[in-house]
Amino acid sequence: MSLTPVLARIDADLEKSTQRLLDLLRIRSISTDPDYQSDCDQAADWLVSDLQSFGVAARKCPTPGHPMVIGHMDGPADAPHILFYGHYDVQPVDPIDLWDRDPFDPVVENTPKGRVIRGRGSSDDKGQLMTFVEACRAWVSEHGALPCKVTFFFEGEEESGSPSLVPFMQENRDELMSDVVLICDTGLFQSKTPAIVTMLRGLLGEEIILTGPDKDLHSGMYGGVAINPIRVLSKVLAGLHDDQGRVTVPNFYDGVPELPDDIAQQWDDLKFDHGGFLGDVNLSHPAGEFDRTPLEMIWSRPTCEINGINGGYTGNGFKTVLPSQASAKVSFRLVGTQDPLEIRQNFRAYVKSMLPPDVQVAFKEHGASKASQMATDSAEFEQARLALSDEWPDAAAFVGCGGSIPIAGHFQRITGVSPMLIGFAKDDDAIHSPNEKYDLDSFHKGIRSWARILDAVSGASPSQA
Amino acid sequence: MSLTPVLARIDADLEKSTQRLLDLLRIRSISTDPDYQSDCDQAADWLVSDLQSFGVAARKCPTPGHPMVIGHMDGPADAPHILFYGHYDVQPVDPIDLWDRDPFDPVVENTPKGRVIRGRGSSDDKGQLMTFVEACRAWVSEHGALPCKVTFFFEGEEESGSPSLVPFMQENRDELMSDVVLICDTGLFQSKTPAIVTMLRGLLGEEIILTGPDKDLHSGMYGGVAINPIRVLSKVLAGLHDDQGRVTVPNFYDGVPELPDDIAQQWDDLKFDHGGFLGDVNLSHPAGEFDRTPLEMIWSRPTCEINGINGGYTGNGFKTVLPSQASAKVSFRLVGTQDPLEIRQNFRAYVKSMLPPDVQVAFKEHGASKASQMATDSAEFEQARLALSDEWPDAAAFVGCGGSIPIAGHFQRITGVSPMLIGFAKDDDAIHSPNEKYDLDSFHKGIRSWARILDAVSGASPSQA
Repeated sequence: MSLTPVLARIDADLEKSTQRLLDLLRIRSISTDPDYQSDCDQAADWLVSDLQSFGVAARKCPTPGHPMVIGHMDGPADAPHILFYGHYDVQPVDPIDLWDRDPFDPVVENTPKGRVIRGRGSSDDKGQLMTFVEACRAWVSEHGALPCKVTFFFEGEEESGSPSLVPFMQENRDELMSDVVLICDTGLFQSKTPAIVTMLRGLLGEEIILTGPDKDLHSGMYGGVAINPIRVLSKVLAGLHDDQGRVTVPNFYDGVPELPDDIAQQWDDLKFDHGGFLGDVNLSHPAGEFDRTPLEMIWSRPTCEINGINGGYTGNGFKTVLPSQASAKVSFRLVGTQDPLEIRQNFRAYVKSMLPPDVQVAFKEHGASKASQMATDSAEFEQARLALSDEWPDAAAFVGCGGSIPIAGHFQRITGVSPMLIGFAKDDDAIHSPNEKYDLDSFHKGIRSWARILDAVSGASPSQA
Repeated sequence: MSLTPVLARIDADLEKSTQRLLDLLRIRSISTDPDYQSDCDQAADWLVSDLQSFGVAARKCPTPGHPMVIGHMDGPADAPHILFYGHYDVQPVDPIDLWDRDPFDPVVENTPKGRVIRGRGSSDDKGQLMTFVEACRAWVSEHGALPCKVTFFFEGEEESGSPSLVPFMQENRDELMSDVVLICDTGLFQSKTPAIVTMLRGLLGEEIILTGPDKDLHSGMYGGVAINPIRVLSKVLAGLHDDQGRVTVPNFYDGVPELPDDIAQQWDDLKFDHGGFLGDVNLSHPAGEFDRTPLEMIWSRPTCEINGINGGYTGNGFKTVLPSQASAKVSFRLVGTQDPLEIRQNFRAYVKSMLPPDVQVAFKEHGASKASQMATDSAEFEQARLALSDEWPDAAAFVGCGGSIPIAGHFQRITGVSPMLIGFAKDDDAIHSPNEKYDLDSFHKGIRSWARILDAVSGASPSQA
């Protein structure tokens, strides 16, 4: 089976492929908000139907949360079995007033930097997921078959902590076994260099709810004498970093490794444009640990971020209320062998130690995953790197990633395979933000990249990672 | 003109008076939210019409914001001219899910502590305002006239900083001149002792909006390297109090007087139930300056409170966003001769001094008023105190008040009259909170109290304060 006609088919069908993606983007599959439960279900149905349309044996698999989609298509017996993972759920859209159009009325726009697909999920992760689906469709269209056996595995809870994922993978371990795992949820390095991510940070999500008085009070009547939970919350959060930018949670840095010299050298060679990276979002000073480089701050150092805070009156005008409650959402990005459960325990103990009498705290869990390091000595890593290098102007590289993609670690633990994280998003895609987009070029060359990788990996002997 | 039939008329008409108040409470006159502008207008119309119904020459007076209502009714030439002030606007109703019924569908409820009028504004200030209107109606009903000349002056912006009030009072100074000013927006001391407030705290309202990156970011991609405005805001707010509970804004305590010994003694004699006051809202520890009594904390000491805070994702679930902005509403209660404009300047300088590079701040003003001290040596203060003592089981007292009622200072500066602040609210009225109520007993005896005060003050020689 030759690659050449497949690439030609992809080029010829780009308009049809784009229209299919727009159909999927119209579905409001926000997984974190219970109001959108039926939309998530609808997105899963759409994917099952789309896979079936070119011969994949696909089905929707129920979970206690949003459903999984699994599909299988056979291939030559001597080629390796590939599994591809993506997620069909998307982030919430607020602040909605900062969007220039309805997040779920996607469109292809001409911009000064080229054509883009605009809409929630266009980049994270529906657009990326569909690059692989379209590559497979083109293979089947030209050759009536795939060059290797492929399993499709799509999740609908990635943006809300994946509560059903691990139990599902454990229960369906045999069906999810493969020789190679591909995941498309990452980006081009510096928006141009194709990259395989081999180092991923873990994530611990925590919510703190502080309660002082048992009802909202008038700050004229009680101000000065009744404890204000926002004041206490501010002190708790302000104490999370010391004046060197280090996280103060006790024993937080246990298990944080120093970067090996060879990796440090490789990262230096990438000539990361620190100024441009920050300048793109109107910043100029790295805000993390004072003695670390920006690339370390986002790839190999752990962090603590406050992702949301709320208390009292936040509408228009002013209200002299002394609120009963205040809350914050806090997350930790983890590296090396940091243990999220131990950090959760130490974080909660720290919060409790900061509370004055009369203030109670409640905690909510929002996920806990360890960092991951891929086994890059498997042959398919180098095959995929060379295939990517054929498609793009720059040679592909092995890199780190600041984001948390817990699925990578789940595959390592449950099926024993180190997944290859390959994606085509750009830094200005505004994922998780208003006006999210995916470059039409990312979509087009992304599809072509997967066609090449299928070809490259199929031609090689299966490798047991 | 005898008082006795007036009191009997009040008792006989209580049901009708209550129904009129319920009518007024149904109007959603939330002044701080522009969505309710026409409701505020409707409340003003209702009051004009109600005053006219018993012969008052009343009219609605436009302002750049919500309208004022002014009414006049003549009286005997030898009696003093009294002006009464109240406000018809109310606080917002959120958190709406903590209300047991629609805040604007008021009702008279039987409770274990007696009958109450339930609904937003029942206590603050529609119910209190109507106590005076009903007292006047009863006088006119029995005697065809009032015992003295009365001017009614109702505002619709008290809960949103009264932006139109001072210009209006200055422009209409001649029409608002009187010998005595009565204001009904305060409460019974310890929910039972009738009180005339002679010391009021001022109020400075400020809003801080911090901006870091120019868009919301993914905390995986930027977490650790991009400054987080919530983290900075926490540090700013956490630094507003030292570990002794004192406010740290530079020069904040300039103009804060120590309490005179005789007033301190008078307050000691009140036997304030500190434990009960805090226990009512499920607290047990005074949270203000460590070396002050709770009564000082709420009456004679200045404070700094955070009334609202907002940033990042605050909905259900979790979102790993690194937000572009975070904001807080901060207010200061002021005493003595503290200068709100100087404190604003020093507060803003403090905030700016706490900002790292890359974080910008914008400020919004939400009102600035000095503290007030009444000239209690005017004869009508003692006349009113005795009249109140006749109505209630306890003898009436001169007290302080932690809340800010800027109108008191405006009268002192613009008309030269020290107003008498008399009200019948109870500590558990939940003003500004869900399930606000006003005891039917407060309403009934409040009306009777004003009938007595009109009688007492009218019989005396006019006093020029």
